[in-house]
Amino acid sequence: MKKIYNPQPETWSDICKRPTQTFTDVEETVKQIFKEVQQKGDKAIAKYTSFFDGVTLENIQVTSEEIEIAKKEVSNELKEAIQLAKSNIEQFHAAQKTGKIEVETAIGVTCWQEKRPIQKVGLYIPGGTAPLFSTVLMLAVPAKLAGCQEIVMCSPSDKNGKINAAILYAADLCGVTKIYKVGGIQAIAGMTFGTATIPQVYKIFGPGNQFVTIAKQFATQNGVAIDMPAGPSELLVYADETAIPSFVASDLLSQAEHGKDSQVILVTTNKNILNDVEEEVYKQLKELPRQEIAQVAINNSKLIFVETEKTALSLINEYGPEHFILCSQNEDYFIDGIQNAGSIFIGNYTPESAGDYASGTNHTLPTNGYSKSYSGVNLDSFLKAMTFQKISNEGIQNIGKAIEVMAEAEGLQAHKNAVSLRLKNN
Amino acid sequence: MKKIYNPQPETWSDICKRPTQTFTDVEETVKQIFKEVQQKGDKAIAKYTSFFDGVTLENIQVTSEEIEIAKKEVSNELKEAIQLAKSNIEQFHAAQKTGKIEVETAIGVTCWQEKRPIQKVGLYIPGGTAPLFSTVLMLAVPAKLAGCQEIVMCSPSDKNGKINAAILYAADLCGVTKIYKVGGIQAIAGMTFGTATIPQVYKIFGPGNQFVTIAKQFATQNGVAIDMPAGPSELLVYADETAIPSFVASDLLSQAEHGKDSQVILVTTNKNILNDVEEEVYKQLKELPRQEIAQVAINNSKLIFVETEKTALSLINEYGPEHFILCSQNEDYFIDGIQNAGSIFIGNYTPESAGDYASGTNHTLPTNGYSKSYSGVNLDSFLKAMTFQKISNEGIQNIGKAIEVMAEAEGLQAHKNAVSLRLKNN
Repeated sequence: MKKIYNPQPETWSDICKRPTQTFTDVEETVKQIFKEVQQKGDKAIAKYTSFFDGVTLENIQVTSEEIEIAKKEVSNELKEAIQLAKSNIEQFHAAQKTGKIEVETAIGVTCWQEKRPIQKVGLYIPGGTAPLFSTVLMLAVPAKLAGCQEIVMCSPSDKNGKINAAILYAADLCGVTKIYKVGGIQAIAGMTFGTATIPQVYKIFGPGNQFVTIAKQFATQNGVAIDMPAGPSELLVYADETAIPSFVASDLLSQAEHGKDSQVILVTTNKNILNDVEEEVYKQLKELPRQEIAQVAINNSKLIFVETEKTALSLINEYGPEHFILCSQNEDYFIDGIQNAGSIFIGNYTPESAGDYASGTNHTLPTNGYSKSYSGVNLDSFLKAMTFQKISNEGIQNIGKAIEVMAEAEGLQAHKNAVSLRLKNN
Repeated sequence: MKKIYNPQPETWSDICKRPTQTFTDVEETVKQIFKEVQQKGDKAIAKYTSFFDGVTLENIQVTSEEIEIAKKEVSNELKEAIQLAKSNIEQFHAAQKTGKIEVETAIGVTCWQEKRPIQKVGLYIPGGTAPLFSTVLMLAVPAKLAGCQEIVMCSPSDKNGKINAAILYAADLCGVTKIYKVGGIQAIAGMTFGTATIPQVYKIFGPGNQFVTIAKQFATQNGVAIDMPAGPSELLVYADETAIPSFVASDLLSQAEHGKDSQVILVTTNKNILNDVEEEVYKQLKELPRQEIAQVAINNSKLIFVETEKTALSLINEYGPEHFILCSQNEDYFIDGIQNAGSIFIGNYTPESAGDYASGTNHTLPTNGYSKSYSGVNLDSFLKAMTFQKISNEGIQNIGKAIEVMAEAEGLQAHKNAVSLRLKNN
């Protein structure tokens, strides 16, 4: 772990820097697959499923029989855990509903805002070593609450043509309407253009590797919205002397096991904590099944000592972490002052894993400094705000003159005329 | 105008199609300018300002003296109009504020969501024939209400090194913190990377031509968020026999004068209305100063007759107009059923120009079918939602087991361990 003592502000931008990714090679691949899927539809999907996933499927849509089998394969213990998590996620996201906002801005001029569901959404769930059924919960629960009509899910199958049973169980439980055994670039392209089998959607959600990340960028260039740009997962812990070093170490390691490129940072105002946490990290690291992955991330991790809480807060806001764990006797100072973070975990008994699975908050969060401008996924991610206005004869008298003057000054005579005609007719 | 009677559903996707824009040539230009601004900063800004705008500036930042002069140049009549518009926009956007949302999802597990301002935002105001001070209001008013600390504005100067007085007046009135005389691709690149003079921002807002549109796409690839992808402006009017044809015609023309590529559509269940509106359009068109522009858009516009309101609503939802004017005796049917539209204008006395300037709603709206997935600019566009969670000793007992089971099933042992350690310590 890299120890940094009292870094000078001019070095902060280097400390906060994430590894840059160059995508030039990937881009050509994505471009080619998008073109083929647009032109050849299901045929191209099948070709690339065979090429990348090494499997040839008769039917890419998951059947109700397959879901019934999956339900039987999931243990009762896991089912109960998933149901508890779902209930908490539901409660928290349901509370985010906003009503109609109506204002009579001038007499006879009524404006209102209403949110309506995005009708067709696509959820991407990666395959690979970890079957991310928790991400199914995080995306499908708010999609269903928002009232999205069509909730399409794509996830690659294994070599036997199967999707992990817990993923299918969670998708069925949360109201996903259609599930396809398609992964990677071809899945994103399929939901972008639509094929004879896969429906076209209006917005695509979900994590993925660098191929999926670039594919989602291409989707935005083809008229489909996305949840947010993705990057390697991150955790920053602020700990003072009230923190328990073994807990902090376990949190840093839970981030580190995600991938070799995971970003792990400790900021502290206490040098003993810095050393104790480091010691604990190496102790716990030895016991982990994913030690090899975690080791690489830990080697690149940073332990940063600063003199004051004020400096700590400034540095944290400059970094803008995806996950921010806060163990401080002055927690209100940090809660009030944090400007840039995806999700904040407060106190010794709030591990990041709680938010990853079951506290109720969403785990799809902005990485790579995007917390400076992006929200994590929430209920509003599945809705769009529309505005309405209704103006009476009296209302147009009250604001018509101002509109005429402004339209004239902008050189837009027809805009003025649309008002003048109505004023004359009154 | 193109008249279409009872189009079959299989032809709708053609009717709803917007002109496709190919950007390949533009992309290379944008790439080159971004690279130069990143490497050479202000020097590159000066080079391209001279190249594109034909002006060499000593100082690109607008001074307080220039603002004072501008204030004197704007007529009192226009000032009052701008102030009235500002007041209405403020009222409507202030009402969109949401409070802290807090839920105890399980005993001892408290989750909350709070929205905090995006600290640095950039507003782009195009130059050209129409000085869009109204867009300054639409972006700066909600930015200020949201609490954004730094509100940077870029707009190209004229050949004499001046920005339109009404633009400067509006920017000053609404609390823009810094104004730069920079336009086009170089402005967007400047706010993306920051230069010695221009601050780097976290999110860029505002309209522009195809160069600016592509530049904003490049900004997103360099870590900066944008309001939404842009496209030519659009209006769809639904009118039945209760509509006043001259009013409808004036609205269609106010859209048509925006640009040759403006999209103008009438949908009606009444053939007389269709013909009367057409006649009125050609009558009013002759009187317009921007006749030449409007004529091209009108030539490409569509008058569509359908038999039923149900068909009309389906077609409108498939199109997803930026602006939707609704003149119907059954207006509630359309208000309840509209799923995809940016802003909706209801009744004979609600011209689109009202929303463009002064009703209080925002005029920065999704075009090109993006209303299916994007909101128009609103207060939340300048905020991001952050989540917090605080779990007590008791709380982790209540959800800890579920987290352990799920983490284990996803193969993430360190995630499980972060909880197990805390459960043991209880």
